[in-house]
Amino acid sequence: MPLPTRILNFLFGRPLATSEERAEHIGPVAGIPVFGLDALSSAAYGPEAALTLLIPLSLTGVRYIVPVSFAIIALLGIVYLSYRQTIEAYPQGGGSYTVATENLGAEAGLLAASALMIDYILTASVGISAGVGALISAVPSLQPHTLGLCLAVLVLLTLVNMRGVHDTGVVFMIPTYLFTGTLLVVIIAGAWSAVQAAGHPVAATPLPLAPAATAAVSWWLLLKTFSSGCTAMTGVEAVSNGVMAFRDPTRKNAKITLTIIIALLAILLAGIALLCRAYGIAATDPGSPGYESVLSMLTRAVMGRGWFYYVTIASVLVVLALSANTAFADFPRLTRAIALDNYMPHVFLLRGRRLLYSWGIYVLVALTALLLIFFGGVTDRLIPLYAVGAFMAFTLSQAGMVMHWRRQGEAPLRMFVNGFGALITGVTTLVVFVTKFVEGAWITALLIAAMILLMRGVKAHYRRVAREIDLNRPIIPAEVTEPIVVLPIDRWSRISEKALSFALSMSSDIRCVHVITGETADSFCDQWENLIAAPLRASGRCVPHLVTLRSPFRYVLQPVVDYVLEVERETGYRKVCVLVPELVVRRWWEGMLHNRRSDLLKVILLMRGNRRIIVVNIPWYLERTEAAIASR
Amino acid sequence: MPLPTRILNFLFGRPLATSEERAEHIGPVAGIPVFGLDALSSAAYGPEAALTLLIPLSLTGVRYIVPVSFAIIALLGIVYLSYRQTIEAYPQGGGSYTVATENLGAEAGLLAASALMIDYILTASVGISAGVGALISAVPSLQPHTLGLCLAVLVLLTLVNMRGVHDTGVVFMIPTYLFTGTLLVVIIAGAWSAVQAAGHPVAATPLPLAPAATAAVSWWLLLKTFSSGCTAMTGVEAVSNGVMAFRDPTRKNAKITLTIIIALLAILLAGIALLCRAYGIAATDPGSPGYESVLSMLTRAVMGRGWFYYVTIASVLVVLALSANTAFADFPRLTRAIALDNYMPHVFLLRGRRLLYSWGIYVLVALTALLLIFFGGVTDRLIPLYAVGAFMAFTLSQAGMVMHWRRQGEAPLRMFVNGFGALITGVTTLVVFVTKFVEGAWITALLIAAMILLMRGVKAHYRRVAREIDLNRPIIPAEVTEPIVVLPIDRWSRISEKALSFALSMSSDIRCVHVITGETADSFCDQWENLIAAPLRASGRCVPHLVTLRSPFRYVLQPVVDYVLEVERETGYRKVCVLVPELVVRRWWEGMLHNRRSDLLKVILLMRGNRRIIVVNIPWYLERTEAAIASR
Repeated sequence: MPLPTRILNFLFGRPLATSEERAEHIGPVAGIPVFGLDALSSAAYGPEAALTLLIPLSLTGVRYIVPVSFAIIALLGIVYLSYRQTIEAYPQGGGSYTVATENLGAEAGLLAASALMIDYILTASVGISAGVGALISAVPSLQPHTLGLCLAVLVLLTLVNMRGVHDTGVVFMIPTYLFTGTLLVVIIAGAWSAVQAAGHPVAATPLPLAPAATAAVSWWLLLKTFSSGCTAMTGVEAVSNGVMAFRDPTRKNAKITLTIIIALLAILLAGIALLCRAYGIAATDPGSPGYESVLSMLTRAVMGRGWFYYVTIASVLVVLALSANTAFADFPRLTRAIALDNYMPHVFLLRGRRLLYSWGIYVLVALTALLLIFFGGVTDRLIPLYAVGAFMAFTLSQAGMVMHWRRQGEAPLRMFVNGFGALITGVTTLVVFVTKFVEGAWITALLIAAMILLMRGVKAHYRRVAREIDLNRPIIPAEVTEPIVVLPIDRWSRISEKALSFALSMSSDIRCVHVITGETADSFCDQWENLIAAPLRASGRCVPHLVTLRSPFRYVLQPVVDYVLEVERETGYRKVCVLVPELVVRRWWEGMLHNRRSDLLKVILLMRGNRRIIVVNIPWYLERTEAAIASR
Repeated sequence: MPLPTRILNFLFGRPLATSEERAEHIGPVAGIPVFGLDALSSAAYGPEAALTLLIPLSLTGVRYIVPVSFAIIALLGIVYLSYRQTIEAYPQGGGSYTVATENLGAEAGLLAASALMIDYILTASVGISAGVGALISAVPSLQPHTLGLCLAVLVLLTLVNMRGVHDTGVVFMIPTYLFTGTLLVVIIAGAWSAVQAAGHPVAATPLPLAPAATAAVSWWLLLKTFSSGCTAMTGVEAVSNGVMAFRDPTRKNAKITLTIIIALLAILLAGIALLCRAYGIAATDPGSPGYESVLSMLTRAVMGRGWFYYVTIASVLVVLALSANTAFADFPRLTRAIALDNYMPHVFLLRGRRLLYSWGIYVLVALTALLLIFFGGVTDRLIPLYAVGAFMAFTLSQAGMVMHWRRQGEAPLRMFVNGFGALITGVTTLVVFVTKFVEGAWITALLIAAMILLMRGVKAHYRRVAREIDLNRPIIPAEVTEPIVVLPIDRWSRISEKALSFALSMSSDIRCVHVITGETADSFCDQWENLIAAPLRASGRCVPHLVTLRSPFRYVLQPVVDYVLEVERETGYRKVCVLVPELVVRRWWEGMLHNRRSDLLKVILLMRGNRRIIVVNIPWYLERTEAAIASR
């Protein structure tokens, strides 16, 4: 096995045959980390985002986190039921794009597709930057390397993902289950203490004092709090989009996976909300020096600052960084679905050596890197762009499901569930868009519009090409007409002899083109009669025309191309075959000793030519060894 | 005229036809700056280099500068006579390379060629760095930008030179004549003052005191002083190498130019030496803070520190920087001469749009930039590498002339002159090499050896290629045998119909190759019988073979290439034509929407193929407009 192949295999695993595909399919145990990591990790920032908005209300505000969280959990339940129904109806993978396209039409599908693509890229960016940001809060000396760390994590994720879905599941299993497990232990232990202390437990380590209240509660504030907490729901659609990655029975495995993910997320959100209220934990200002994350305060209030605290915080850090992985698992599948409808370039349909849609990964990595570089790897700057896309996709998906059930003419309960979900997520989308507009949602809106225009352009191009080249009728064999052969000859050599022999076997109308630049003495015209014309005449063959072209500016290729185009114009219907003799060297450095005129001629003919001009490459391979030359 | 062409013309002048060549030829007035600037400018550092070695002798040492300088002038005279004879004998351009090759054999020629090439690159580097260094002595605040200034000067010189020889002469005329003129005025005025003061003139402005003597005079010291002063002779060979750039009568114009350059240089060297002695000007230590150049001290001793002083010093600065130009004028001619003998790649033979050997300029600029960057643009670090090559070339050239006269069997005086010159320059070469070995001459020696090996390798390659492809016999028309045509078909379309029609006109043995990857449903094999085989059979044509290849790893090209190679192996003598249908798009962005498989197939076939495999490109051009499609 050559070394480059070995390195490839070491980094990305051996290539997989198409027939090995089944082996790559996964069950719920591997599926929860792969498709649920993003959703679960949002428990680390969703409640915090909501509590941050309640800071002006001081400790009074903390009481509101319980109803707000239960509203979010209720919404989560509605979205869960909707996606269960989607998995049932679309076992081939029913992301918002598919559902919206099939039930609401192509335009709605494009809107969903753009919203989702942008949201996946933001998922990857925010996940990485949040993880690195948390790491930097723990180790402040790494601060100057923020962007470098973000990009290093991106490279690591890319390598892991290039190995394929199966390996990815294994790699991500441990941190995901550690994160969920430690948080559940915190919640159970906290609940036990609260019950013991009749609802008023005392923190194991002292908590920071909440600042004095600066505002009164209002419905608008609670609505904003609710929609901010809804960032906890991003990533929920991943399972339904990737149903086909599950092993048989596909639907059942997907539904089990989705149920477990949603249940775990709901328990985490409810537990965090109730314990925050019980312990009186208010968020701290993200910009101020005394900042501490809600999860950190909660964990040390319940468990104290022992080894368990550090294990929990470490798993939070890792899981936040890895939450970007949902985007890696799903973005390529989404782009493939879009490309199947000709709205994206067809390269997104190609599967690489490890059965992945490699181009989807390349594009995701490139755009994520751009976003990280542009925003310096700082989460706070990325957040305002985020979640608009996700909720837009939720709304379109559920609206699509309403149409789906209506068309089937039954299941009014299901229709009601989806309709209610569509209404609530629609309102949430509007609130998120309005409250975040100035801070960055306008960028998302512009990007979505640009993506839609781009996809329409791609589709228009493919439609045009298809109209031009598609063929359903049988072949009409063309008249067999002898082509006109044009052969540029620079000097008489074995190469030109070979090309001329081939030309003689193709046609009786051969034009040998010789360019005179006046640079060096030129004996070709003198040789022509003796070495070429006379022997051919003697053997009864037709004699090619010798065409000499003068080139005052020493360009060699331009006169040849001009001549070919002239011949093509003059002869109405015959094909013009241009023979391009080419010296092929065996070693790279030998290439530098010969001019690349033949390559250039081929490119220029391709660019300036037309359908009746056919380029024939006559390669002349240099022998590898002196012995081989001598033996000839 | 399109914009890029206009920019090109503005920067480099309009393209010149080969027939305009005569107009580019120059006379002595333009020839002195072009070929003499390097030699003349060395008056600014030659005497200084010699006087620097005499510092340990204090004012006693200054007395020795007169005999040393006159020895150098005598040597200059011998070299002058030698090169006059060379111009006479080699009107086509007789540089050391030509003379050594013709009279001493190819190995001596290669040695001369390497020595000269390296010396030209050093001329360019040292000229630029010395000029910038002088500028920095005048304006110390520019010190941190040394390298940047060097590279800027290099770019400027490149632009000026890309316009061609004629324009170059005009641009360099003013500074050269200003430099020579002001120095001559200083010398005449100084001589007048010295005569007036009976040999003991008083300096117009006070000169620094010479430090106390720290050593006694020795023959070894004087020999070193002599050889160090010999750096004043670099660049003398330029005229004889570029004889063909002069207008008719070529030899006479070249000889007049050489005579004037040598005479001016001799006057400058003699005048500087005599005045240094008369005014008692000792060199100052180049490393110390009180450093002042000899020319600066001399000028202000004679003329005072008025406007004339500043004009003189400014012209010294400009001329030092421009002395690099001799390398630009001569290096491309030298590489052309070497390439004509197949020791250098043939690109050095091509003349660009302004009748220059462009590649010589590119390579000179690249290597000069490398040297400048590597040595940080500091002259002191470059100097030890310098002059070895020039004196080696002088020696070989004069030794070659000795053989030339001997073979002619007459002119014993001429033989003696050249023989004496060869002896003296040979000794000088040895002294320079020995005294500079540790400081850097070893690098020059290594580079010369490497260049010789490289040139031998290039020659061996061209010799092998020539043995393989050269042909002096008449054409032997090959048997006309029908080729086997291989046509990869992906799906049935207008493109494949066109390719198949062309295949049918070429041969009756057609293999349509279809690769099945198992990625998508594949209906081609079902269409084959109805759309292709049956209609052809019905019309009495031969029916192509359908070859289906399965590709478990989803590679599409590899099976096709393997099949082609297999067919080629099985059929002993027939040619295998591979038809590559290709979609040609009209806009660059459309290229991203289609895979580049056809390009890749062509490249792989070229790399892995052999002489019996011919690649035929069947282009399908997309129409530019919807209307054009509709009209078909």
